[in-house]
Amino acid sequence: MPHAVSPLAPETQPDLPPIAGCRAGAIAAGLRYKGRADLTMFAFAPGTTVAGVQTTSTTAGAPVVWNDDRLPGGSARAVIINAGNANVFNGEQGMKDVAATAAAVGEAIGCAAEEVLVASTGVIGQLLPIDKLLAAVPGLAEHVHEDGWAEAAGGIITTDTFEKRATATARIGNATVTINGIAKGSGMIAPNMATMLAYVATDAALPSGVLRDLLVPITDRTFNCVTVDGDMSTSDMCLLFATGMGPAHPKVESATDPALADFAEKLEAILRDLAIQIARDGEGAQKLITIDVTGAEDDRAARVVALAIGNSPLVKTAIAGEDANWGRIVMAVGKSGEKAVRDRIAVRVGGVTIARDGGPDPDYREEQITGHMKGRDIHIEVDLGLGGGKSRVWTCDLTHGYIDINADYRS
Amino acid sequence: MPHAVSPLAPETQPDLPPIAGCRAGAIAAGLRYKGRADLTMFAFAPGTTVAGVQTTSTTAGAPVVWNDDRLPGGSARAVIINAGNANVFNGEQGMKDVAATAAAVGEAIGCAAEEVLVASTGVIGQLLPIDKLLAAVPGLAEHVHEDGWAEAAGGIITTDTFEKRATATARIGNATVTINGIAKGSGMIAPNMATMLAYVATDAALPSGVLRDLLVPITDRTFNCVTVDGDMSTSDMCLLFATGMGPAHPKVESATDPALADFAEKLEAILRDLAIQIARDGEGAQKLITIDVTGAEDDRAARVVALAIGNSPLVKTAIAGEDANWGRIVMAVGKSGEKAVRDRIAVRVGGVTIARDGGPDPDYREEQITGHMKGRDIHIEVDLGLGGGKSRVWTCDLTHGYIDINADYRS
Repeated sequence: MPHAVSPLAPETQPDLPPIAGCRAGAIAAGLRYKGRADLTMFAFAPGTTVAGVQTTSTTAGAPVVWNDDRLPGGSARAVIINAGNANVFNGEQGMKDVAATAAAVGEAIGCAAEEVLVASTGVIGQLLPIDKLLAAVPGLAEHVHEDGWAEAAGGIITTDTFEKRATATARIGNATVTINGIAKGSGMIAPNMATMLAYVATDAALPSGVLRDLLVPITDRTFNCVTVDGDMSTSDMCLLFATGMGPAHPKVESATDPALADFAEKLEAILRDLAIQIARDGEGAQKLITIDVTGAEDDRAARVVALAIGNSPLVKTAIAGEDANWGRIVMAVGKSGEKAVRDRIAVRVGGVTIARDGGPDPDYREEQITGHMKGRDIHIEVDLGLGGGKSRVWTCDLTHGYIDINADYRS
Repeated sequence: MPHAVSPLAPETQPDLPPIAGCRAGAIAAGLRYKGRADLTMFAFAPGTTVAGVQTTSTTAGAPVVWNDDRLPGGSARAVIINAGNANVFNGEQGMKDVAATAAAVGEAIGCAAEEVLVASTGVIGQLLPIDKLLAAVPGLAEHVHEDGWAEAAGGIITTDTFEKRATATARIGNATVTINGIAKGSGMIAPNMATMLAYVATDAALPSGVLRDLLVPITDRTFNCVTVDGDMSTSDMCLLFATGMGPAHPKVESATDPALADFAEKLEAILRDLAIQIARDGEGAQKLITIDVTGAEDDRAARVVALAIGNSPLVKTAIAGEDANWGRIVMAVGKSGEKAVRDRIAVRVGGVTIARDGGPDPDYREEQITGHMKGRDIHIEVDLGLGGGKSRVWTCDLTHGYIDINADYRS
């Protein structure tokens, strides 16, 4: 039961240029879906470095466990992703299937199984159709090509209603390098088990430690600031690869090297772009909600408050109903557990101050924001008046469509 | 727009007998609703003791702030509750209105304002119609009577679709004392700002310290184990009064006195009964969900895991769809942040083991629980296999009705 494309989908998706040293592609392996690609691979040149951020779920899937053991090594030659089956909670067989998959990929492209990362997204608690998967690997390994990014973006999605791609160039010294990224995600998990996966690659030459030092804080400000339903997936991951096959640039050994400033900025822009696209494709989403919390004791506290607002079913249903029910925003601030002082809190919606100094703004009239509430992009600002901490979080409204997708539709 | 009575409502509500030294009643003060009582009062005999548990929201309402300052005194002569307006985030005027209300009640029944507790439930950020409220107080103070409990149960509700009452007798030594309780709650907050309020009174003679030592842990196991949408109210409170006007009984000075064992058990039964009624009246609820987590490191960890399951939109929508999507239960365990070891987790639904030893139970067939999923009472059991901690939590499914009430209906 495919769902209509989200009304919040971007009008166009960028073409992703080749990244030297990176081949990609997807094929229809018949693992779960009919008539579409569901097995995706990236193959990388020898020497490619990698860093990753994965779910902190204590019931994480077998692929996440496999990758956790291999990411510290800092290099990878491939990642293979199947859509439709998460390979989660499948006992020891789940781990065996991951190992067999990695070994098959290694054999096909000529590397060790330990140099292959694995991802699965879909239903929990069903064994992978491993024979079909293994049979498809050699063909997929032959199929991958430098122009395969769009194919890969289509191969990894599940309940997503549109593909999610982003690209940029960045300057390192006098060289211009390229960064491509794709992602999937719609609910944190869903009947077909949509989860958040993201794959980003660059032709820059960067040690894995630098990649990690860039990726962790940027992920915190981008993917970790998106919530659809607050349900953390067992399969989330964001992997960042650097092939080193692009134009020669000055050697960089630290994420804080000024030569990397533009690269870091562009990388963050790509991850932010993909993160917002995920919120735009939230199950049943009719409105994108951007929540800015300022004046918190620190950035961490600001993010907790912003996520409390972004995860509140009452805030999200009010916005679905185009109701400027700001009392629910105050409620969500109060439940966050972070410090808040009533008389210092200010609430703005659509740029209009609704409440301040511990009470409603006497000049506020609901008509001032009626037009904003009817729009597709809702902006909530909360200033706590306590310090310099700030955070921006993206989410979507909670609509009948979410119930349709998750209750009326059987997995 | 009144909503149909919840299909999960109890078939009957008990008659609440008089409690010596406690008068109750409700009148239509025209504060918000038309044609129904919306101002409720309990008046107590001199010497009545009290203990209370209130919301931990940092944006709690003015009445909560007022009560927080008075509850440590341990005695009270009255509590007044208005429905339809929460008196939250109303700045200094909100506090002034509470003080004026308490003063008016004190004058009407002949006690100090400091001996009057106050509660409000309803919309956030609108000033109370304080003149109307104050004008209604003298009549209400004359109106309260020993048979007024049912009236009070009707006077405090907002979006509730049924009244919530419970009563029991208990033995203290050779004496038989009575305990009555009423509650309201439907969503944590809602357009009409349903919140959890509960008032319990007994004719036993118990010091406020004993009441508090009883109430805090019992509340943790009852009201604090109910969730409808995870949105914590700014106005929640549970107050327990003891008039000491019932049959003479041995003096009790400690909550652990064996003479109090039966009383403690009956008190917990009443609070549990009211708590489950709140879950049964959850906005849009079609199914009551009871979640038992066992084998946790301790009871606290068990409750965190149980609430993670009970607050998961994906678990709640799956149950609305009568889908035994147990992978979502595993997901919720994993996101709770509490310790879990994949290979020790067991999941049972409707008494049938679905998953154990880190994977699906090979003997499980979905047909085994199809009938259970179609019923009104859903039972989820998760054993973590780590220790002796356990917790039981009640919630309801997440349906189109919740969206209707909270999005389509303008406050």
